[in-house]
Amino acid sequence: CNDRTMAAATIDDAPGKRPRQGDGPGDGYFESYSYVGIHEEMLKCRRTDAYLKAIEHLAPHLAGKAVLDVGCGTGILAIACAKAGARVVYAVEASEMATHAAQIVSSNGWAPTVKVLHGRMEEVELPEQVDVIVSEWMGIFLLYEAMLDSVLIARDRWLRPGGLLIPRRARLWLCPLRDDGFRAERLDFWSDVHGIDMTCLRALAKAELCRKPRIEEVPPELLAASPACIADLDLATVQPAALKTVQSDVDFTSHVRASLLGFVSYFDVELADGEWLSTAPEEGPTHWQQVSFWWDTPLDISQGETLQTHVSAAQNVANPRCLDIRISCKLAARHPPGSVTQSGRDPASPSGLSSLASHALAPSHPTRLEKTFALDTLC
Amino acid sequence: CNDRTMAAATIDDAPGKRPRQGDGPGDGYFESYSYVGIHEEMLKCRRTDAYLKAIEHLAPHLAGKAVLDVGCGTGILAIACAKAGARVVYAVEASEMATHAAQIVSSNGWAPTVKVLHGRMEEVELPEQVDVIVSEWMGIFLLYEAMLDSVLIARDRWLRPGGLLIPRRARLWLCPLRDDGFRAERLDFWSDVHGIDMTCLRALAKAELCRKPRIEEVPPELLAASPACIADLDLATVQPAALKTVQSDVDFTSHVRASLLGFVSYFDVELADGEWLSTAPEEGPTHWQQVSFWWDTPLDISQGETLQTHVSAAQNVANPRCLDIRISCKLAARHPPGSVTQSGRDPASPSGLSSLASHALAPSHPTRLEKTFALDTLC
Repeated sequence: CNDRTMAAATIDDAPGKRPRQGDGPGDGYFESYSYVGIHEEMLKCRRTDAYLKAIEHLAPHLAGKAVLDVGCGTGILAIACAKAGARVVYAVEASEMATHAAQIVSSNGWAPTVKVLHGRMEEVELPEQVDVIVSEWMGIFLLYEAMLDSVLIARDRWLRPGGLLIPRRARLWLCPLRDDGFRAERLDFWSDVHGIDMTCLRALAKAELCRKPRIEEVPPELLAASPACIADLDLATVQPAALKTVQSDVDFTSHVRASLLGFVSYFDVELADGEWLSTAPEEGPTHWQQVSFWWDTPLDISQGETLQTHVSAAQNVANPRCLDIRISCKLAARHPPGSVTQSGRDPASPSGLSSLASHALAPSHPTRLEKTFALDTLC
Repeated sequence: CNDRTMAAATIDDAPGKRPRQGDGPGDGYFESYSYVGIHEEMLKCRRTDAYLKAIEHLAPHLAGKAVLDVGCGTGILAIACAKAGARVVYAVEASEMATHAAQIVSSNGWAPTVKVLHGRMEEVELPEQVDVIVSEWMGIFLLYEAMLDSVLIARDRWLRPGGLLIPRRARLWLCPLRDDGFRAERLDFWSDVHGIDMTCLRALAKAELCRKPRIEEVPPELLAASPACIADLDLATVQPAALKTVQSDVDFTSHVRASLLGFVSYFDVELADGEWLSTAPEEGPTHWQQVSFWWDTPLDISQGETLQTHVSAAQNVANPRCLDIRISCKLAARHPPGSVTQSGRDPASPSGLSSLASHALAPSHPTRLEKTFALDTLC
């Protein structure tokens, strides 16, 4: 195996990934959390360590308080809050895992403190307002699954004014990816398959690679610019309506002359004051991995050149747990002629970069190129 | 990661694995072979090297002959036969890949020899009888996908008497697996999850592990006895009806006292005289991996003790490309008392083996135990 190979899967191919179904009864969203395997994967992910550490640090804010855990799963965070001194923890879980959570709570001696409520957050009744809401609601591309919607409903209904949210803030990041021979490495395979020229499959192979957002571990050295924050959610104030469409205009200025493969996105959340859980490529694997978007053709960018980018992620109309993600971008020159171009050529072509100067445009004159990813849905 | 961790997936979870759908138009069986990714995986698998080497060795038998390639995919084997001197190769492919195969054949200069026919094998017409049939038809557990049925139909209709089949023979193997702490390693996780006792999830986790046949790489050191051949098909003579249900009674005599995890199965095919392509665990990875069947409870076996096993694999009635696999077994003593027992205990219990003697039975007296895997279908 090649070290540089991304362990790639589209969302369709990712069985251990978070559920892909909708919301109605019996459609599989909550059912998928009834399996132990998905909890094992989440518990083994460093997200759990990060939450437990943050809860421990927040002990002074939890002592004697009423806590609500939205989507408690096995109950691990609810118990951690109890251990940290909470007076009572309401642990709400819609899947059948609630039954097991109640057993775990009881066999660990936390039944007096942790009350497991089996039901949907939108429907359960709590006996009181709470001081703290804890939840691990993040999906792929942060918002996939739309579980944050349930957390905000819980906040508006059950959190006392000024109450604490864990996490308190969430950010979604986008960054252009260097190709760096990456795509060619995959596609060059077809030019000599056991001595047979299968170049005619190259275009088809490329289309398959680019067809959908890719859930994969992206090597951090492929990041081509400083990442840009495309959504910064203060969970105490963000309104549910704002989650229906998240969009942002961001500029990336390339540090180097490079051929771009597309974009990568990842997120981070602030669990406690200054304590972040980040799923960035350089932070090491999580079960979320990253989401990458590959262009059909590479985009050549020069040093100092700016990629004006618009990104939007909208909840799918038919299934709000899914996302329709669109990214469009164009090059705008900041520097003198000779530094700006876009090419439809394949990066595999070694002569690709030498002819750039002839396509150079005037400074500050945006190229005509505009590319919208035909990657509509993360479902 | 743990070296001993099997890279496990049930057939549901295995996207790159061979197609899971049925046979009707539009139901996805042939469509799934329209994607380039599946061909890339197969071409990179050592099965391709083995076929190409065998075809090269068979050149004296191919020179000047008419060859039929059943399910030619990208056309690689058809071209190899042409290179080896075949007069004409009829390359039949039902999926859209046929169009690309024709292009590949043409751009490599083999159009005069290799005729790509886009259609189902059962429906295409050849202008003549052929001397050789080549096909890579093997599915998971050898028979999954039922593509061999199409090869036999082609044989009966188009192969001249005494013609050559590549492969000529196929064998399916079964072997008991040592637990060797394997299952406990997975399940012990639940007894201390970040300091919380989740033992109540252990049974559920075990049930999930055992629910279905597992497509995985099995470490060869887990093989507990000499493997037994449960089907040995001479492709020149085997009748299509015989593929509807393959069944066998086999005995395994344990070399060691061990706790058994279940069974593993794999296959091999003879491509040319004495040249085998084997998917056995000790032969290294292939895209087929192996199929393992895990018991709900381990079975303790003593040295020299015999596990009388009955296995059957029947084509599913609703979808003949799927298999209903059943394995039942019982222990029969061959040696003096003290060597025979079965235990329903979990291998995680360190005291498990010490109490075996008290359960000992008279020699040659089969234990009452009989276990049928509730693993019905590989779909």
